[in-house]
Order: sequence, then C-alpha cells, then structure tokens
Amino acid sequence: MDPYLRLAGDPVLAAALATADAAGHAVRGMTSPNPPVGAVILDAGGEIVGTGGTSPVGGPHAEVNALAEAGERAAGGTAVVTLEPCNHTGRTGPCAVALLEAGIARVVYAFADPGEVEGGGAEFLRAHGVEVTGPLVGPGTDLSGVPQFSVEPWLAARRLGRPHVTLKYAGTMDGFAAATDGTSQWITGEQARARVHLDRSRRDAIIVGTGTVLADDPRLTARRPDGGLYDHQPLRVVVGETPVPEDAAVFPALRYAGGTLAEVLADLGERGIVDVLVEGGPHLAAAFIAAGVVDEVDAYTAPALLGAGIPVISPAADAGTTMTGIRRFTLRSVEVLGGDVLTMATLGHG
Amino acid sequence: MDPYLRLAGDPVLAAALATADAAGHAVRGMTSPNPPVGAVILDAGGEIVGTGGTSPVGGPHAEVNALAEAGERAAGGTAVVTLEPCNHTGRTGPCAVALLEAGIARVVYAFADPGEVEGGGAEFLRAHGVEVTGPLVGPGTDLSGVPQFSVEPWLAARRLGRPHVTLKYAGTMDGFAAATDGTSQWITGEQARARVHLDRSRRDAIIVGTGTVLADDPRLTARRPDGGLYDHQPLRVVVGETPVPEDAAVFPALRYAGGTLAEVLADLGERGIVDVLVEGGPHLAAAFIAAGVVDEVDAYTAPALLGAGIPVISPAADAGTTMTGIRRFTLRSVEVLGGDVLTMATLGHG
Ligand SMILES: NC(=O)c1ccc[n+]([C@@H]2O[C@H](COP(=O)([O-])OP(=O)(O)OC[C@H]3O[C@@H](n4cnc5c(N)ncnc54)[C@H](OP(=O)(O)O)[C@@H]3O)[C@@H](O)[C@H]2O)c1
Ligand SMILES: NC(=O)c1ccc[n+]([C@@H]2O[C@H](COP(=O)([O-])OP(=O)(O)OC[C@H]3O[C@@H](n4cnc5c(N)ncnc54)[C@H](OP(=O)(O)O)[C@@H]3O)[C@@H](O)[C@H]2O)c1
Repeated sequence: MDPYLRLAGDPVLAAALATADAAGHAVRGMTSPNPPVGAVILDAGGEIVGTGGTSPVGGPHAEVNALAEAGERAAGGTAVVTLEPCNHTGRTGPCAVALLEAGIARVVYAFADPGEVEGGGAEFLRAHGVEVTGPLVGPGTDLSGVPQFSVEPWLAARRLGRPHVTLKYAGTMDGFAAATDGTSQWITGEQARARVHLDRSRRDAIIVGTGTVLADDPRLTARRPDGGLYDHQPLRVVVGETPVPEDAAVFPALRYAGGTLAEVLADLGERGIVDVLVEGGPHLAAAFIAAGVVDEVDAYTAPALLGAGIPVISPAADAGTTMTGIRRFTLRSVEVLGGDVLTMATLGHG
Repeated sequence: MDPYLRLAGDPVLAAALATADAAGHAVRGMTSPNPPVGAVILDAGGEIVGTGGTSPVGGPHAEVNALAEAGERAAGGTAVVTLEPCNHTGRTGPCAVALLEAGIARVVYAFADPGEVEGGGAEFLRAHGVEVTGPLVGPGTDLSGVPQFSVEPWLAARRLGRPHVTLKYAGTMDGFAAATDGTSQWITGEQARARVHLDRSRRDAIIVGTGTVLADDPRLTARRPDGGLYDHQPLRVVVGETPVPEDAAVFPALRYAGGTLAEVLADLGERGIVDVLVEGGPHLAAAFIAAGVVDEVDAYTAPALLGAGIPVISPAADAGTTMTGIRRFTLRSVEVLGGDVLTMATLGHG
C-alpha cells in the first residue's frame, strides 16, 4: 500500500502529501534554522493548484508560496502541509492567518509544530471554522516504509537539542568501504555518486575525520553531474587532532582538533546547524555510533564483494557486542540507483 | 520501466512472462535434474487461459501442463515459456510437438535451450509455420533490475559444469552476522526468516560449515510459518574436518570432511544437485568467495547497527585486496520483507 495513502487515508490527499514533501525536500539545506516545509493547495475540486517550499530565512513560508501560486483558486480549497502552519508573527506573518484569508476550507498537516511560540496554528484555524486534520504522524505512528519527510531532521534536532546526524557510507555487499590497500574508486556507480552530491547540497554541514582528509584529500563540495557547484554548499567540518595540510582541498572548513563529538555537535548547533551528514571514514563512523548520536543511516551498497578490506565501520579494537546492544532503526526507503542500492533508515519520527 | 516489458516489448507478453516465471519458481527444487520452467498460454484474444510449471522428473513439462489447463482455447493462441520448448522425445514427448498439435500460433521464450539433444524446438516450430520470438535473453542482455528467472541456476550449472552456488547471509547494515559473543537471534525479523525457509524449500541442497553446526546446532529444514515442513526438503550438507556430534540436529546430512570446495561441488553435481544454497557461516562464505564459485548473493539486511561483532563474511587473516580484485555482480532485485531488505545479485545470465 502506498505509504502516503496509509497516512492520509485518501488517494487525493496522499498524492498531495507526496507532492508537498517533494517541495520540502527541494529546499532542504537552504532554510536553516527554519524547517524545510512543503505545502500544496488543492482547489475545491481536489486539483493541485499551488505548490511551495519554505523560502530562505526572511522569505515566505511554504504555505504562503503555495497560496501565491494558487491565487483565487485557493478559496474553498484544501491546504496539505508537512508541518502544522505557524501561528506567530516572526519575520513573516503567521501562515494560519494567510490560509484563513485565502479562504482555505480545510488544512491537513503531517507533523505537529513543536514550537511554543509557533505552535497552535491548528487550534487557531479550528477556532476560525477551518476543518483541520492532523497531525497525521505522531509518536505512535509506524513509519516503516514511509520515505523520510523533509522536516524530520529539523524536528529531531529540535527534540534532541543538537543537530540531527546522518551517517552515510558507501560499500560492498560484504561491508567494505575500500580495499585493503585503501583504494575505493569507485565502489558505487555514477548514479549513486551523483545522489551523494545532491544529498550534500541539501545538508547544513558535512563532517569527516582527519583520516579521510589525509587519505583522499576530498573537496566535499556538492557538485552537479556536469561538475558545476550546486547553489547551496554545506559547511565542511574536519574533526581529529592530527594536523592536516593547510592546502587540503577541503578548506575552507571548520576545524575541531579536540573535544568530544557531543561538544562538536553542540558547537555546530550554536552556529545554527540543524542537519549534518557524517561522510566518514570508518573510524569516525564508529565513533558516532559509539557516542549514540546517529539518527539516520544512509547506506549506499554496490552489488559487489571484496572479501577483505577496510570495513564501512571500523570495529574498535576492544569492542565487544551482544545482541542486547543492537541499535535498531526503522527502514524508510530502498532506492535502486543505477546498479546500486540506497537504503535509508531512521531512529523514528520527528 | 517494468523489467519484463523491457524484455518482451509488449505489456500483454510482459505480464504473461512474469506469470510464467512465477509458475517456474513455484516448482523450484522439485524438478532437478530438469530445469524448473514456467509456461503460460494466451488465447487468441491475449487472455491467460493456462499456466504451468515443470512436473517432477517423469511428469509433463511446463508447456504441456499449461496446455492441459488451456484446453481448446489454446488454438490460435500464444505460448510464453521461460525456456525454449524441447524438441526431443525423452521421458515425455517433445513440447514443440505438443504446442504444434494444440494449434498454438506463436511461441515466445526467454532463454535458449543449451542442450544438444533437447535444443532446436524453436527451429522445429518455425519450420512448421509457428511464429517464434526468442530468445528474449541472450549473452548481451542487460539483466540489471530484472528479477532472477527460475531457470537461471539450472542454465548456469549447465554452462559451468557444476552446481549453481548462491551465497546467503543475514546481517546488520554495518555487515555483522552476529554479535561478538556469537549471539544472532534475531537480527532479521519474522518475514525475512520465513522467506529463508521458503527459499530453502526451492533448493536442491544447503551447505554449512562445521562452525555453524557446532555453534548453532541448526536443523536447516524448510519450515512453513506454522512450523510444518514444506513438501520439498533440500539435501543438507556439512563441510569441514572438525567432528560434529552424531546427534546434531542437521542429520541426516551429507558429510564432507576433506577435499576442496570444487571437489565437494563436483561430487554434488554427480548426485544430480543443480542449485545449492550456502548458508554459512562467515568462514565458509569467505572460502566460497575465495574459490571463485559464488554465482549469486542473497543478502538479508536488517536496518540495525552492531558496531562490532562477527562479520557476515570473515576476511582471511592474510587477506589483502585492491579494487582491481573486486567481484562485481548484477543487481537483480531488492525486496522489503517486513522491516528488512533482501538484495539479490547474480553474476549474469543463463
Ligand atoms: N566508502 C566511504 O563511504 C568512505 C567515506 C570516507 C572515507 N572512506 C575511506 O576511509 C579511509 C579513512 O578512514 P579513517 O577511518 O582512517 O578516517 P576517518 O574516520 O575519516 O578519520 C578518523 C579520525 O577521526 C578523528 N576523530 C575525531 N573524533 C573522533 C572520535 N571521537 N573517535 C575517533 N576518531 C575521531 C580521529 O582523528 P585524530 O586521530 O586525528 O584525532 C581519527 O583518527 C580512507 O581510505 C577513505 O578512502 C570511505
Ligand atoms: N547470519 C547468518 O547468515 C549466519 C549463517 C550461518 C552461521 N552464522 C553464524 O556464524 C558462526 C559460525 O561461523 P563459522 O565461520 O565459525 O562457521 P562456518 O563458516 O559454518 O564453518 C567454518 C568451517 O567450515 C569448514 N570448511 C570446509 N571447507 C572449507 C574451506 N574450503 N575453507 C574454510 N573452511 C572450510 C571448516 O571446518 P573445519 O575447520 O572443521 O575443517 C571451517 O572451520 C555462528 O556464530 C553462527 O551463528 C550466521
């Protein structure tokens, strides 16, 4: 069953929810510290007449952008939004008021707004006679098989009081990120690599360890398939005490040469970073897992075997495990990228 | 694009091909040394009027079973078969003749019959005025994203002169089959485990190493979700020099306490075994890979991290790799089983 249909309960709303979330994903990386929300306006007949994502800080929210596209056709229509419409006058006017003024008859939203200031849009709309359905997703909702909503990292960061952390790695089916001699170009194919770059363009920051900088001297920029840079480039972050050359390709980058990962994340949070991607290598990946701060795993897997090599995650020399220590995630989506597979799993919901 | 449509070029034939292959899969494990073929009969209007799989040795072939179901509606219709119809009078009459006698106007088949005796059905049919389309799959066909056809292991065994070998393992996203203390119950969930049992019921033999027998004392039977045994039980095979208890749950089993894996496979081939499943453990898996005799990989992956543990495949202590030594497979299918993922990759085509 279509996962959006499972949540929204009706095919028209399900399609609108998927479209709204796609609009949210399209603005990821460009909205922080605001959430990358997506919105769709359906006219009274159920046709999509407006789609919008959150504008960069200071610009209109998703609902307002979608309403602008819908124009007069919004009257009597339905707004489908991935996050509860805001109710406060910040840099922009409250979305709840904008929806009301546009004559929207019904609002459907996926996640509740956790903000003490912003929250309450649903209540306001209900009080003014708008039919409100939501949140479609709450603490008890089974999100297995539901592709990650663009607002989830922001919601998790809010709840956790630190940036949301995605661990990304690329490896073989038998779990190796590189051959024993350190070579890894290329385990995954072109489509998977293009997807990594697109993903980078939607993050606030990318973190790597000194080991990766010294071994690969990566640029860690987000590049389009033609080699050009995406408009949004994430902040690059290098952690570890070993000195790295000043002319390493990763610079300009934020450099943490001490402190725990929790301290690094806290500092990034203070800088307005909401959504970080940990791109390796295997030792840093292991450290993030051990620190218990991995919220999402994006595993790119090539249908290949190396038999031996550098594992995608380095077991610490003294690491011992029992099944009781297993960290379980919820499988959100599996995508075939050319001949490779991207498996996404998260800890839960916003 | 639907992978069957890519091969068959027309939606009606594509649907028939998928149905025919499903009928072939349903008889896997029960037809050796004959191939598990599937066939569908479409009436003159393109409606499916008969479906059949190969019967156990001595019984009718797939085409004949499908024709029997179709009855008179076969006249003027199309037969879609996963393997070229046979042309020789063995234990049963030639299928090519049966198709002709039923008045079939067109035959479409996926793979050519490599047999010197059996082959030539297509030629015979063409010579008798039947329109023949095939093979749809040949040495140059890109099978990426095309689910494995039931006849492929048989075809590969034929070509290789030894049983087809599938390496199966279950593990976490970070590549561990068990925790450091050896516990692994349960990494994957109920649906994945049920799928393993169904898969066993479709194999000729299952091979494990002495390590798995000593550690887990598995029965290695193919059990239905209700605990009852499937009709077909694969031959159980234990390899390795270490003695295992005579009352181990795996017995009765074939026991190889010496010899190379190539010798083991050659002996199994002589016993009529076509399709074997290597179910572990990690050392035996590594040995099969090192011996270069893995034709298919079925990886069951749980969205979980262990951080350390027993790897799904044990790197040999002295193993060193370079990217030039990577063994690449073709990704055939990715299936979500409950909250887990089954990734199937093969070396190529029949
Ligand atoms: N396939 C992939 O997805 C992928 C991605 C990236 C890299 N790689 C490969 O990975 C290899 C490099 O891996 P690597 O593991 O040596 O490098 P790494 O994980 O990038 O760096 C390890 C370093 O991270 C630093 N670090 C900071 N905080 C840490 C903490 N709390 N715990 C542990 N370490 C911490 C340490 O630096 P100090 O020792 O300096 O303090 C440590 O040595 C290369 O071969 C590269 O090609 C593969
Ligand atoms: N998650 C999974 O899919 C899965 C599946 C099965 C097992 N397991 C786990 O795996 C662990 C057992 O693993 P294991 O690796 O010790 O056992 P194993 O791979 O089942 O057995 C290894 C033994 O296979 C024998 N062998 C025969 N021919 C060989 C060759 N050419 N090269 C190397 N070995 C050959 C050797 O036996 P001799 O030394 O006696 O000669 C070797 O010690 C258990 O913890 C079990 O739970 C997990």
